[in-house]
Order: sequence, then C-alpha cells, then structure tokens
Amino acid sequence: MMPEYKSPSGSKKPIWYSVVLLLSLLLNGYLLLRPSDHRQLLDGDNRKGRMLISENRGWSRRAADEAEAVAAQYQCSGHGYVFVDTFLTDHNGSFVCECNPCYTGPDCSHLISDCVVDANQGDPTFLEPFWIANAEAGATVVPAWYRMSYDVNNALEYSATSPELEKQIRALHEMVGNAVTKGRYIVLGTGSTQLINAAVYSLSQAHARNPSKVVAAIPYYGSYRDQTEMFDSNDYVWKGDARAWVKKSEFLNSSTFIEFVTSPNNPDGLLKKGVLTSKNVKDIYDHAYYWPHYTGIPRPANEDIMLFTLSKVTGHAGSRLGWAIVKDYDVYEKMYDYVEENTLGVSHDTQLRTTILLKAIVNGYKQKKQMEKRHTDEKQLLFHYAYSVMRNRWQRLEKIFSGSHRFSLQSLEPRYCTFFKKVTGPSPAYAWVKCEKEEETDCTGVLRKAGIIGRNASVFEADKRYVRLSLLKRDDNFALLERRLQALVS
Amino acid sequence: MMPEYKSPSGSKKPIWYSVVLLLSLLLNGYLLLRPSDHRQLLDGDNRKGRMLISENRGWSRRAADEAEAVAAQYQCSGHGYVFVDTFLTDHNGSFVCECNPCYTGPDCSHLISDCVVDANQGDPTFLEPFWIANAEAGATVVPAWYRMSYDVNNALEYSATSPELEKQIRALHEMVGNAVTKGRYIVLGTGSTQLINAAVYSLSQAHARNPSKVVAAIPYYGSYRDQTEMFDSNDYVWKGDARAWVKKSEFLNSSTFIEFVTSPNNPDGLLKKGVLTSKNVKDIYDHAYYWPHYTGIPRPANEDIMLFTLSKVTGHAGSRLGWAIVKDYDVYEKMYDYVEENTLGVSHDTQLRTTILLKAIVNGYKQKKQMEKRHTDEKQLLFHYAYSVMRNRWQRLEKIFSGSHRFSLQSLEPRYCTFFKKVTGPSPAYAWVKCEKEEETDCTGVLRKAGIIGRNASVFEADKRYVRLSLLKRDDNFALLERRLQALVS
Repeated sequence: MMPEYKSPSGSKKPIWYSVVLLLSLLLNGYLLLRPSDHRQLLDGDNRKGRMLISENRGWSRRAADEAEAVAAQYQCSGHGYVFVDTFLTDHNGSFVCECNPCYTGPDCSHLISDCVVDANQGDPTFLEPFWIANAEAGATVVPAWYRMSYDVNNALEYSATSPELEKQIRALHEMVGNAVTKGRYIVLGTGSTQLINAAVYSLSQAHARNPSKVVAAIPYYGSYRDQTEMFDSNDYVWKGDARAWVKKSEFLNSSTFIEFVTSPNNPDGLLKKGVLTSKNVKDIYDHAYYWPHYTGIPRPANEDIMLFTLSKVTGHAGSRLGWAIVKDYDVYEKMYDYVEENTLGVSHDTQLRTTILLKAIVNGYKQKKQMEKRHTDEKQLLFHYAYSVMRNRWQRLEKIFSGSHRFSLQSLEPRYCTFFKKVTGPSPAYAWVKCEKEEETDCTGVLRKAGIIGRNASVFEADKRYVRLSLLKRDDNFALLERRLQALVS
Repeated sequence: MMPEYKSPSGSKKPIWYSVVLLLSLLLNGYLLLRPSDHRQLLDGDNRKGRMLISENRGWSRRAADEAEAVAAQYQCSGHGYVFVDTFLTDHNGSFVCECNPCYTGPDCSHLISDCVVDANQGDPTFLEPFWIANAEAGATVVPAWYRMSYDVNNALEYSATSPELEKQIRALHEMVGNAVTKGRYIVLGTGSTQLINAAVYSLSQAHARNPSKVVAAIPYYGSYRDQTEMFDSNDYVWKGDARAWVKKSEFLNSSTFIEFVTSPNNPDGLLKKGVLTSKNVKDIYDHAYYWPHYTGIPRPANEDIMLFTLSKVTGHAGSRLGWAIVKDYDVYEKMYDYVEENTLGVSHDTQLRTTILLKAIVNGYKQKKQMEKRHTDEKQLLFHYAYSVMRNRWQRLEKIFSGSHRFSLQSLEPRYCTFFKKVTGPSPAYAWVKCEKEEETDCTGVLRKAGIIGRNASVFEADKRYVRLSLLKRDDNFALLERRLQALVS
C-alpha cells in the first residue's frame, strides 16, 4: 500500500494520483526497455548510431581478443601459422596450423625428410619475424563502417587514393632517399603487377597505325611479357629482348618502343639502365627491389615512371599494393583511369593497413633518432633488420658455392649506400645460379634432381644454364635450401 | 652488511660467497635487462618472436584504442566521418571531419544551402548505419604479420583464394537462396569490376580469326563497353546493343557472341534474360543487385557465369571484392589465371574483412532463429534493414512523382520473395527517370538545372530522355535529393 503523501499545499493526493503515477512508471519502463529495433535506424538519422559508438566503447574487443587468442594459442612450433580465418579444423573444432612447406602435423612439428624445397616464388616472407616483433606498431583495426565508399572525400575532390597513404609513401622515400617524389604524381595499383599494364596502356597510343613495341633486356621479369601477351591489344605488342632492337634504327625511328628496366634486376640483382636510346623509346623503371635490403642505394631514382611495391619493402605481398611515381601529368592521369576502369581503385582496407605499416617503419627510425641509443630498438629498424637477413643469406650462399666449379653465382659488388651511410656488401633477392659444366644445359632440371625447385630460365627468356632461386622466403625454407645446396655442391 | 648465514652443515659462508652471489645477480640482471636487439631475430628462429606474441598480449590495443577513440571523439554532427587515416587536421593537429557532400565546417554541422546534390554514383553508403549498429560483429583486426604471402597454404595446394572466405560466400548464398553454388567454382576479383574483363577474356578464343563480339541490351551498365574498349583486344570487340543482332543470323551462326545480362538491370531494376539465342552465344550474368534489398528473389540463379560484388550486398564498395560463380572448370581456370596475371590475386586484408562481414550477416540471422524473438535483434538482420531503407526510399520517390506528367519513374511490380517468404514491393537501387515533355529531350540537363546530378543516359547507350538517379547513398544525400525533386516536380 502506498502511504498517503502530503503536498506542500497540504492537500491529500487522491487515488487516481497513484494510478497515473503507476501508469506513467510503466510507460517509462516500456519506453526505456523496448527493443531498439531497426526502425530506429530507419529514422534517416545516423546520429543515434554514432552516439552509440561513442557511448559503447569496446566494439573492437571481440575482434582483437580473437586475433590475439589464436596468435597466442597456436605457436605451430614456429613452423606455421593460425589466423582467425584459418580454415582447417580438427574433429574438436580447434584450428589446425597452416604449416610451412615441408612441415606437417597438427602443430607443424614434423619435418618431412625427403621434402622438395620450393625456391620458386619471390614470396617475401623473410620479413614475418620483423612484424611479429613489431606487432603493436603494425596492427590494423578496421571498423565495420570504415570507408565503405569508393572514394575518399578530401574536401576538394573525390579520389580513390587515400591522401594519408600518399603522404606516408612520400615520407618513406624521403627518409630512405631512394626516389624523388617532389613534384611527382603517385598512382596506386593492386600490386605493382596491375601497374605494369597500366603503364604500357598509358604510354601507347590508342588506334595507332603501328602498335607500340614492348621490350625488356634479357634476363627480364616474365610478367612484362605475360601480361602484354595476355591482353593481346591492338595498341601494343610484346617484342621480346630489348637488345635485339639496339641496332635496328629503321624501327627505332618509326615506331614507339616501351622498354621495361628492372633495377635492381629480377633475376640477377644488377642495377640497370635502359638499353634503347631514341626519342621514340619510353622507359618504365621497375624499382621493386630498389631498397636498402637488396642493394646499396647510390642516389634517389628520378625516372619518368617508377614502379614500387609494398610486397618487396615491408614483405606484405598478400596485401596487393603497389605505386607508381610519375613525372608527366597526362601519363599519371591515364594510369589512374586505367586502374579505375580495371578494378575501380585499390582496396581501402589495404590502403589503411599500408598507411599504418609505412608509418611504423618511419616511426621506428624516428624513435631511434630521438633516443640516440644504438642498440635498444634495432628490432624496430626495418631496413637494418631486412638487410641483415638478406646479407647473411647471401654470405651463406657464397660460402656454399665458393669452391664449386660446377655452379656459380652472379657476381655482385659492394656498393656505397646513402641510406646506411657506408659501403654494404651484396644482399640480392635472388640467386641467379649458373650450371658451368658443359653437359648440364638444363640447370633447373639439375637442381630439381637435387630436391630444389627453382624458376626456369625460360621465364626470363634466358639461357637454360641459369636458374633463379628465391632468397626471400621463410627461414625454414632457406635453411632447407641451404642444406640441399650444400649436399649438391659438395 | 649481509648477515652471516648458517648452512645446514653448520659451516660459516665465507666472504667470496657474497661476492659470487652479487656477481651472479648482476649477470642475471644484465642478461634479463639487456636489449633484445635485432640479432635475436637473426637467429633463424622465429619461435622466440612467436613466444613473445604469446606472452605479451595486448599488441592490438594501440590500434583498437586509436580506432575507437576517433570514432567516439568525432561525431561530425552525423554528417561526416573521421577515421584513423583521415588526413585533414586543424592548426592544433586535431582531425577535421570528412564531411558528406553539401555539409561543411570542422564538424560538418553547416548545410550549404544552394548545394547541388550528386546522385550519380552507385555508392552503397546507405548501409553505413547498419554496420555502425553492428560495430562489434563487423570489426576486423589485422595482425602485422597477417598473410604476408601471396597464397594461402591450404595443405593440399597453394591458392590466392581464402578457403574460409569461399565457405562464407557459399553459406550466404545458401541462406539467401539467390544463387546455386553447389558443384560450382568460385573465383575472386578486385571488385566484380575486374571480373567483367576476366569473363570476357575467358570466353574468347585467343588469336581467333573472328574476335568475339561483346554485347548487352540497351540500357546496359556502361563498364561492359568501357572496359572492353579500353583493353582494345585482338580477341574480343565491343559491338553495342544486343538487340541489334537478334535477327542477324548470318553473324550469330558464324562468330562467338558474349552477352552481358544484368539482372536486376542497372539502371532500371528489371529482372532480365539474355536476348540472343544461338549456340555461339555465351552469357555473363551480372547479379550485383540480385539480393533481397533490391528485388524479390523468385529462385536461386543458376547461370553458367554469375558475377556478384561485396559492394552491393554489404555496402563495402571501398573494399573492392567481387566473386564469380562458374559452372565450367576451364572457364573458371582461365578467369582465375586472368586475375593472377592482372593483379596477382585479391588483397588478403580484404578477403579477411569480407569473411568477417559475411559471417556477421549469417550469424545475425542464426541468432534470430535461436532466440525466436521478433523484435530484439532486427537491427542485426542485414537484409531486413537494407530492404526497409530501399523500400522506404522508393515509396517516397513514387509519392513525389505520382501526380507528375512531366516526369515518370520506371514501372516495377511487387514480387514474391523466397527469402522474406512474402510478396515485397519494389526497392530498386536506381530511379530511371524519364522526361515526358516533348521538348525536354535532355533529361540529365533538366535535372541538372534543378540542382541534381544524375547519370547521363548516354552512359547506358539509352535515349537522352532518361537519367539515372542513385538511391544507394547516405541519408543526407537522399534527403537532399528528395527536397530538390519535390521542388522540381511540384
């Protein structure tokens, strides 16, 4: 029973007062507790949702906990990985490790003894330990509603390119000193792979009488040929080895040539210049490997079109992000339009992650500078780490091959590196192995018999006495490669 | 002073005991506290790093805190966004909102009064409020070392496609009932945009005497033409309106035709079938809009090649992820190879995010089923939410145009939807507006004068009496569009 209440005026509250109060309280309760269904969202006002985001912090916790839990729980003996989208599960529904090649078992602890080692692909997974050591700086959280639009609204215009990413790309080149970006345009691609044909397309003239001739000096990266041939365009055509055209001035003067120059070169790691010179020759410089990991940096590159890829600088090949630095506005615009037409831009999820990864690299060096300590944070220095790994691998290879008359490695010279401010020894991405014995004309086959898969010289249109071995893969892979090579050479 | 200690044997500890202990403690201290520099990482063993990840939880916290902080701090008056890679900052270094078009000011609170409303692009940002409301289920955390390799190692073979994503795509179609996936192959693309030319390439014969003729019935989505023309291939050529070829049996019998069929159609929202029939005609069905948001689903689509895109189902256009469901293995393989050659696969960051987003949709419905409550979780039901928004917008448009003799909307019928298990009214992605007055032959121009940017009919090779208006954009955009149309029509 409700006690009677005396108001300041002294009057007694009648019974209806209690009833109304009760009804009002019930209504309050209903209004407060009624489900916030999707009609709320239909009010044409996303402010409510936004306020919810402000009040209900912790929306990232589920995803963060999941990602951390699998990373912590599944060590895979150091020979494999589990991610939140790892698809293999055992009969209990627990994840099963994605093992490195040649390792097996639910925790990847078993090394398959007679396993063939795959040194074919340029998969830059040697940088995984660096990112594991820099897990905090390199982590990316993507909110559910993050950049759902095709474009970034940058106040002045819409663009498929994130201005912040562009800024980080410029900052990285500035710090490393490997490319001039001032006054240059930057176009993103789904890997520099996409930019190969974007550049060819942009340098060719549509419906020209003579299609442009696309060339590269042997040995060259096979994708230039494969892409150009796949697109089978009326406007450009693959014409093989650039050196074959050097003396054919009647052609050089009458049609457009597009020459791919890879520097350092894939496969052999040498710094290169274009071999064709004529006013009709347009160069595309692929500088995928022009980083202190792989070569001393003599000076900032300053070519008309320069391709770079995230894959070979941070090791994130799976993210598919590349960029071109372009001098000429019209060429830039045609490349940008090509990417828009081909894929409607580049994933913004990846643009965000790339922004964070590049920032982590630059910040690592900034922190070092601030702290002025030599050792405390070297594990935060990407280029120092990456160079150490690649240099170490190359030295080990040189040792293996040093006494051999049957095999040889390409010859690379020490070089002054403006980034490290000292002379650095060779640290190429690939070994370009030659079989020296007269009868061993198929070097890929020779290595294959010894349990090593290399990349066939024909991919580079080169003499089959050569074979390319990737030095970019995981420690597990390199250790096995070393073992097989040791057995073969000795 | 150290007190003397009596050992169990009763002997006194001499002074050297203390010295050794002190030295030992100092050594321990040094060993424990010495910097863990990158030499540790060079040991060829990433197990140490992995253990660190296990012991040092919380590596995701920095990124999570940053993402949550900007989301909470910057509300942008509900008319804009700030993300961690928002690039605009004020003189204090604080972020400045990326405002919706027609809104301005540091917090987007100011509506520009005479602003032209842009209803051109099919940017599906109407789904942002859904994902804000489902922030937890839709959040993605990408570890720094996540899938750095090009490929996923799925124990049997390497693949650029995440098996878990493929599983989620199949599960979503299964739940919605809009496409047969059993026994079909799935190939991913950087948006379905990339798959347009991938499909054309795969259906054409290289170096054929007659290049394949690529066609679509007017009004058609302009990218089919634009891409085919851009690639300017020897193997296929754009040949315009499919209907123009219906009666030309001499051509139909002598060369390969590739017909694009968009169903529901872009721009007019009608369900379509191919118009050409001959053994030489190969169809590519673009089912980007074949979801319960935009049309009743009469039955699961079951065509030879079907294109879908994340953009139009979850609204994540910026992520650039599409997929094709393919019956024939050889066509699948050629499409897969095309994507590998063109971009070396699709961003794994985006594949992860897509996996999580699709899982969130399916889980939303699963939870509803488990709870058997009608209202509590409707905001978790993507298709219910998306249909409600689109249906509401269409009804508002119909109301505006209902009395008009000057303008008309396309006519769409209610349809039984097997997903909603009821008849649903029209809810198309676009209005296909016709100017009915004889003298108004340029409908885009008429709307432009009224402050509305639509997409020109010529993009669809259609009569200029038509113009397409996007109904997919943010509430802000639709509200302005409504206001401008109201003023124009009345």
